[in-house]
Amino acid sequence: MSDYQKIDAYLASNLDQSLAELGRLVAQPSVSVQKIGLDECAELVGDLLRKRGFAVSICPTAGSPVVLAERKGRSDRTLLIYNHYDVQPPEPLELWETPPFEPSLREGRMYGRGTSDDKGHIVSRLFAIDALLAAEGELPCNIKFIIEGEEETASVNLAKFIHQNAARLKADACMWEFGGVDHTDTPMQYLGLRGICYVELSVALLSTDVHSGLGGSIFPNAAWRLVWALNTLKGPDDRILIPGFYDGIRPPSARDRELMSALPDPADEYRSRYGVPYFTKGLTGGTDLTIEQVFTPTCTICGLTSGYQGPGTKTILPARASAKVDFRLVPDMEPADILRKLRAHLDAGGFTDVQVTDLGGDAPARTDPDDPFVRLVAGTAKDVYGVPMMLVPMVGGSGPSHLFVHELGLPVATGGLGYPDARAHAPNENIRVDLYLKHARHMVRVIKELAE
Amino acid sequence: MSDYQKIDAYLASNLDQSLAELGRLVAQPSVSVQKIGLDECAELVGDLLRKRGFAVSICPTAGSPVVLAERKGRSDRTLLIYNHYDVQPPEPLELWETPPFEPSLREGRMYGRGTSDDKGHIVSRLFAIDALLAAEGELPCNIKFIIEGEEETASVNLAKFIHQNAARLKADACMWEFGGVDHTDTPMQYLGLRGICYVELSVALLSTDVHSGLGGSIFPNAAWRLVWALNTLKGPDDRILIPGFYDGIRPPSARDRELMSALPDPADEYRSRYGVPYFTKGLTGGTDLTIEQVFTPTCTICGLTSGYQGPGTKTILPARASAKVDFRLVPDMEPADILRKLRAHLDAGGFTDVQVTDLGGDAPARTDPDDPFVRLVAGTAKDVYGVPMMLVPMVGGSGPSHLFVHELGLPVATGGLGYPDARAHAPNENIRVDLYLKHARHMVRVIKELAE
Repeated sequence: MSDYQKIDAYLASNLDQSLAELGRLVAQPSVSVQKIGLDECAELVGDLLRKRGFAVSICPTAGSPVVLAERKGRSDRTLLIYNHYDVQPPEPLELWETPPFEPSLREGRMYGRGTSDDKGHIVSRLFAIDALLAAEGELPCNIKFIIEGEEETASVNLAKFIHQNAARLKADACMWEFGGVDHTDTPMQYLGLRGICYVELSVALLSTDVHSGLGGSIFPNAAWRLVWALNTLKGPDDRILIPGFYDGIRPPSARDRELMSALPDPADEYRSRYGVPYFTKGLTGGTDLTIEQVFTPTCTICGLTSGYQGPGTKTILPARASAKVDFRLVPDMEPADILRKLRAHLDAGGFTDVQVTDLGGDAPARTDPDDPFVRLVAGTAKDVYGVPMMLVPMVGGSGPSHLFVHELGLPVATGGLGYPDARAHAPNENIRVDLYLKHARHMVRVIKELAE
Repeated sequence: MSDYQKIDAYLASNLDQSLAELGRLVAQPSVSVQKIGLDECAELVGDLLRKRGFAVSICPTAGSPVVLAERKGRSDRTLLIYNHYDVQPPEPLELWETPPFEPSLREGRMYGRGTSDDKGHIVSRLFAIDALLAAEGELPCNIKFIIEGEEETASVNLAKFIHQNAARLKADACMWEFGGVDHTDTPMQYLGLRGICYVELSVALLSTDVHSGLGGSIFPNAAWRLVWALNTLKGPDDRILIPGFYDGIRPPSARDRELMSALPDPADEYRSRYGVPYFTKGLTGGTDLTIEQVFTPTCTICGLTSGYQGPGTKTILPARASAKVDFRLVPDMEPADILRKLRAHLDAGGFTDVQVTDLGGDAPARTDPDDPFVRLVAGTAKDVYGVPMMLVPMVGGSGPSHLFVHELGLPVATGGLGYPDARAHAPNENIRVDLYLKHARHMVRVIKELAE
């Protein structure tokens, strides 16, 4: 423990300088959806890495550049760290207590767009590396960074980039871009993400909206065609009706069930926070609810639009109708396979007039909760946070982790400075300084123990 | 014919003064949906009637006042004339060649909001009365006017008004507010309007939209509930599935079929004008199409709205969803009966979470094509227009004519100055001066022959 005491002392006494460095990174706007400041931010991130002796490549893509960096260490083991330098738009500006790109420290927190998602993670990880270099003069193991600039716009160019650069990204384990604690300050380990297949279903039958008194009895109606097509996708029992949709799904294992049963029951929170009047499929709460929540695929209507939507009445037969639909996928479903089955199902039902537009997808991905790297990350967390890390085998959301799990073949673990009031994607995004420091201390331990 | 020659000569030589009077009425804005100028316009219409010796009442309602007027004539027969003094909003203003409330005569037409719908009808009918009074010193029969100010906002207070004033409105026949010629200048007699029952179906299940990754597997989805409920209303074969929906429908008679078969086939026009790719129910055109178009009830989705409707993706599970739906009704269906059956059907299907909001209705109404008053109106038209009036037993639209047919027990006939390029409800609304004069000549004949 004396190694860690020395390193922790370095971190405690250099915290202000590290936060100042984070402040400079936050002050550089880098809004991917608005294409603001991305090249400048990639260069700034590159500079921060070069300062630590990393070999840095700023790699162009069809979108924002990807920052690749590598520094050799004592052991031949390699940790790959995934982060992103882009941020969400700061709007609505009037809700910020201090300007989003003028980082502000107050009451133990730093406020600013990107402090939590994801620049705070980048700089606290560099801070851990500073501490290791100060203590040991070298890195315990090899460290590679991949820091992209399009995470907030669905990482649309990342799959191709990773496929083309797989050799350069070779590693033993991957640390994910986010992580954090729950409302009791218990660190959480998120080990799986569902996949997603997001489509727009659209029907266009007439060249213009028509008076409903004229066409209602004899003209085809795009809104009706859409409703009938949607109805063939899922019935009121919430069973998805696309043939083959459930093929190849791996049910949760006994170990998954054991881990899920250790999680708190969210039913009451969902009732009070979202006004949920009942759960589907006859569920009432507990582990049955949480397992159903993340281990089953979905077919969700995210939006419907057609014809007249204002107050009162307008007697029209609409020319067009469309729906946004997302399918969440569980292992081992594949977005391209679901797209094919959806198209075939619509065609077989006579819905050749329903156009399917692919709006993007990600495959699901999981890391084994008993993978040695997961044990390492969870074990080292206990030393820092004082309580064991809670293992969450699967969460309901989606992301590009499948590229690291499947394309690069890596175990992916989470760890970070997030906490329930971080307000990522919202005004007054912030981090807690104590959790910033804890994440750096945790990363020191992860890097050192992976080297052994 | 010498009587009519004298009267027609009066009309020809006083046309400019009558158009000037119409110009003054058009110059008074009276936009019911914007509540602009309605009281002023009612007073102005009252003045025009008093000038012709009518006893006038400006009757308050919960909305715009109704102008009631009566003048006795030689015979004890009574013609009731229905009109409205309100107009559609003039917007978009930039598309008018001359300002909407500054009437402009050019190339044989008068332009201005309300010239055709419906102020031109009011003043040309007063012009006919002027001619009769000039020729005969008295009216041939009793004439009553009911001129409302809410026709463009669904005549929401008219039913109550007519019910309460039925005795004052007693008559032998009713002349409707509109009418006109087709593209060959053939006068048309529209003898029936479908009814309507317009509802909003809405579902609200959560207090806020929720991330679809969180709730997709376990939260109820308002958009799905709406789709499933709609799907129980009508199937892909266009058969409406509400129990009892088709009860009590009177099929078209042999006489109706005979009259419908005389109408032109609109199929090609619908294909080119609206881009209709096919007709429902296997129809291809001809009398089968036109009979289906107006003699069957409908269930039309006029609009759908839920969740995210912008470009690209947003991964939400929507809190709310709603649909605008109109049912067109044929004799002897009733809006209140359809509302009851709809509610009962949704409840029986478990859709108690779908709220039904009644946005207004009208019953269907028809006048017998062989009614003596219809024969009179059609017969007198031939003398003016040179070709026989085409009898159309039913059209697809809706309106308050059931109040006159059913509440007052009157035959209702149409006649007017409308023509295909009149642009009612649109910029550059206009009338043709020749058709204005013809309508006045026609009204003279209707009034004189009804008196006999």
